[in-house]
Amino acid sequence: MKEVTFEDVIRTVESPYPDFELRKGKTALVLIDMQRFVLGEHLVKAAVKAGLDEHAVREVVKDYDERVKRAVKNAQRVLGVCRRKGFDVVHVRMQGPTDNPRHTAKVNRKIGLIVPPQFEDGDFIDEVKPLPGELVVTKTNGGALSGTNLDFILRNMDIDSLILVGFLTDQCVLATSLHAADLGYDVLIVEDACTTRSKILHDAVLLAQKDVCAKIKTTDEVVRLLQG
Amino acid sequence: MKEVTFEDVIRTVESPYPDFELRKGKTALVLIDMQRFVLGEHLVKAAVKAGLDEHAVREVVKDYDERVKRAVKNAQRVLGVCRRKGFDVVHVRMQGPTDNPRHTAKVNRKIGLIVPPQFEDGDFIDEVKPLPGELVVTKTNGGALSGTNLDFILRNMDIDSLILVGFLTDQCVLATSLHAADLGYDVLIVEDACTTRSKILHDAVLLAQKDVCAKIKTTDEVVRLLQG
Amino acid sequence: MKEVTFEDVIRTVESPYPDFELRKGKTALVLIDMQRFVLGEHLVKAAVKAGLDEHAVREVVKDYDERVKRAVKNAQRVLGVCRRKGFDVVHVRMQGPTDNPRHTAKVNRKIGLIVPPQFEDGDFIDEVKPLPGELVVTKTNGGALSGTNLDFILRNMDIDSLILVGFLTDQCVLATSLHAADLGYDVLIVEDACTTRSKILHDAVLLAQKDVCAKIKTTDEVVRLLQG
Amino acid sequence: MKEVTFEDVIRTVESPYPDFELRKGKTALVLIDMQRFVLGEHLVKAAVKAGLDEHAVREVVKDYDERVKRAVKNAQRVLGVCRRKGFDVVHVRMQGPTDNPRHTAKVNRKIGLIVPPQFEDGDFIDEVKPLPGELVVTKTNGGALSGTNLDFILRNMDIDSLILVGFLTDQCVLATSLHAADLGYDVLIVEDACTTRSKILHDAVLLAQKDVCAKIKTTDEVVRLLQG
Repeated sequence: MKEVTFEDVIRTVESPYPDFELRKGKTALVLIDMQRFVLGEHLVKAAVKAGLDEHAVREVVKDYDERVKRAVKNAQRVLGVCRRKGFDVVHVRMQGPTDNPRHTAKVNRKIGLIVPPQFEDGDFIDEVKPLPGELVVTKTNGGALSGTNLDFILRNMDIDSLILVGFLTDQCVLATSLHAADLGYDVLIVEDACTTRSKILHDAVLLAQKDVCAKIKTTDEVVRLLQG
Repeated sequence: MKEVTFEDVIRTVESPYPDFELRKGKTALVLIDMQRFVLGEHLVKAAVKAGLDEHAVREVVKDYDERVKRAVKNAQRVLGVCRRKGFDVVHVRMQGPTDNPRHTAKVNRKIGLIVPPQFEDGDFIDEVKPLPGELVVTKTNGGALSGTNLDFILRNMDIDSLILVGFLTDQCVLATSLHAADLGYDVLIVEDACTTRSKILHDAVLLAQKDVCAKIKTTDEVVRLLQG
Repeated sequence: MKEVTFEDVIRTVESPYPDFELRKGKTALVLIDMQRFVLGEHLVKAAVKAGLDEHAVREVVKDYDERVKRAVKNAQRVLGVCRRKGFDVVHVRMQGPTDNPRHTAKVNRKIGLIVPPQFEDGDFIDEVKPLPGELVVTKTNGGALSGTNLDFILRNMDIDSLILVGFLTDQCVLATSLHAADLGYDVLIVEDACTTRSKILHDAVLLAQKDVCAKIKTTDEVVRLLQG
Repeated sequence: MKEVTFEDVIRTVESPYPDFELRKGKTALVLIDMQRFVLGEHLVKAAVKAGLDEHAVREVVKDYDERVKRAVKNAQRVLGVCRRKGFDVVHVRMQGPTDNPRHTAKVNRKIGLIVPPQFEDGDFIDEVKPLPGELVVTKTNGGALSGTNLDFILRNMDIDSLILVGFLTDQCVLATSLHAADLGYDVLIVEDACTTRSKILHDAVLLAQKDVCAKIKTTDEVVRLLQG
């Protein structure tokens, strides 16, 4: 006799979030906060400037840095296919509208996360930077759908589903994903095209969303789907 | 010589979210989805109805059920103090505006999570049910701040900070918390007055938010703060 | 030689808002604030209670009262056809979530326009009251798309166009219409199924919107379109 | 015996919107669509290009052009005082995020009103153009509070009241004003620092809002209040 699991019980009250098709003109790729300040190098620079020992800093940042670089490479692959196939692309970035912190989100102001227009490490990471004509949306808070007009723009475009990549899995990507699902978008998170500071939290927040309000897939799987 | 941790490095680019005061007329308690269908008993009923063995179901639901009951007791304590001290209280519940699934959130429709007005297990859990005159906000999606006019009502009231309790930590509570922080509310999650299906995910999503965009405290701590 | 008008000049920079089709499942009828307190009788009651002379009050209210009654009759016709043809219907009403004015919109609180749940003249006008299963959305401010989750519900339903009737043309109907157009809905206002206190302002605000961000049609025209 | 007016009757159910104080740090000046394409000269250019007779066009545009120029002068005065007194200033402009019409508001796309980033007459009118560090918010639809993150930015700044100037009184200014009031902002429209194509419609939509959901004052009055 088959053992009953908690998962079995849950499946009697909720079914898994269904798969959905990726369609040109209806599905948009949203790249979240793929900016230079997310790179390990930026953390090293800041930590050393604050007086920490560079060698020690490089050691503890190493694993994170590798995961970020891998995510960038994967996002770059997804972006490449989306461009070739004519899927809409939106680049979301952290950036204040002015240098005045009062103009930026309270939540990030309170933790000192302010990205003024001229901030040197605020640029897009080279591998995934926007092409002319691609949408760029700036935000100063976490989720890309609050504190911006992204939802409005997506409605203008008749977009109904999103592919999410970028940083950080358990912060801005998470907030964007939950909000998008709540608004009615089908959401697909490319699990190896995003990451965060802790591998455990990355895995946990993806698991929390998986088949509940989002689909979670690998770059390989998404590239295959996009190539239809 | 002190060892450098990844946390030390992060602290050179972001400071911890600051503590904030709980103030009558400015801070509201928001109870999320504290409805009968969250109780273990509801899961047992549904699973047995679906043909699963009752004894086996009770076994696998037991731990969850105990965590839910503990969270209810803790939420009841926080609610009691808020009422005595005159803090504003909002009860958020899952409930469709009509029996028509088209009127409800796409995300939950897709997983079969529909709560019609007359759904028998949709009632508030007795220990934390609203008193006459307390605000009740209904929703059909996850986060209490999307798909509702809760933000509007809170603005009408000049509320700028929220205490969150309820269910599920990694779904509706999480979505509400992230969105609230993004909108500029100070957010305090009462960690033992909410829970979810997996203890690991409960811990993980609270850790992801802790001192980044929310404060996480125990019922004991919150009760002490409320009693000022 | 044809004379050049200002209108001709405008037409060289903007074309008239195009006609759009009314389609079952895509177009919803929204009835705005069709409640008893809008009727002339309610004004008479309030004015007499405040010490004004009843006969004199009836005189000055008479024209308004007749326009309201005509609008109700016309809205009733449109509603009847929508129901028979299976178009979605939403009844929007003014009503506070509780008796507490703090829970209601600041704008209307400031002018003393508060409609508590039990307010006797807050009921829907008989001719156009909701049938069981029809959507009812409550609001405490002006526009039906701010301070409510109406936009969210319409998105859940995949509605992309609205037929507007109700009160007052230059306040709640106007605010709803402008906001709806801004959000991307095609908007059709049934000019003789709404009215306001001043016939001149009714005409003016319809003219301001006509072919700019909304279509303006008569009940006869709309009934014909609905009957396809 | 004093005659009873309809206005007297209305005053028994609603009181006039109360005056409010203009306060540095709490009140922001919002300039709406003060761009070159609003000037009469732009209309003349477009009309002549479309084949209309220049002399005839200048004749019919003359009155509008004078009203626009007067409004610009008055807005400039208000702006000057706001800057000297340290009031926050927001410049709202029509401008697409890219050249792609799909990225812009449906409502304006349908009437052909599209303002690409490089549109020559999309620049701010010289007299009221932003200083470095002043907020600039772009929109592609009508109301400045829908389809933008202006409300979010104002909340970040703790702004609770708005002074509105700009174009057109019965379109973007109107939509902004109604939405702002609905969201809870105190709204003051500077009647002679905005205008529209028809003087009659300008007067009518201001009258519709006056003391209902906004205060209407002249430049002289507002300058006096600001100089407090």
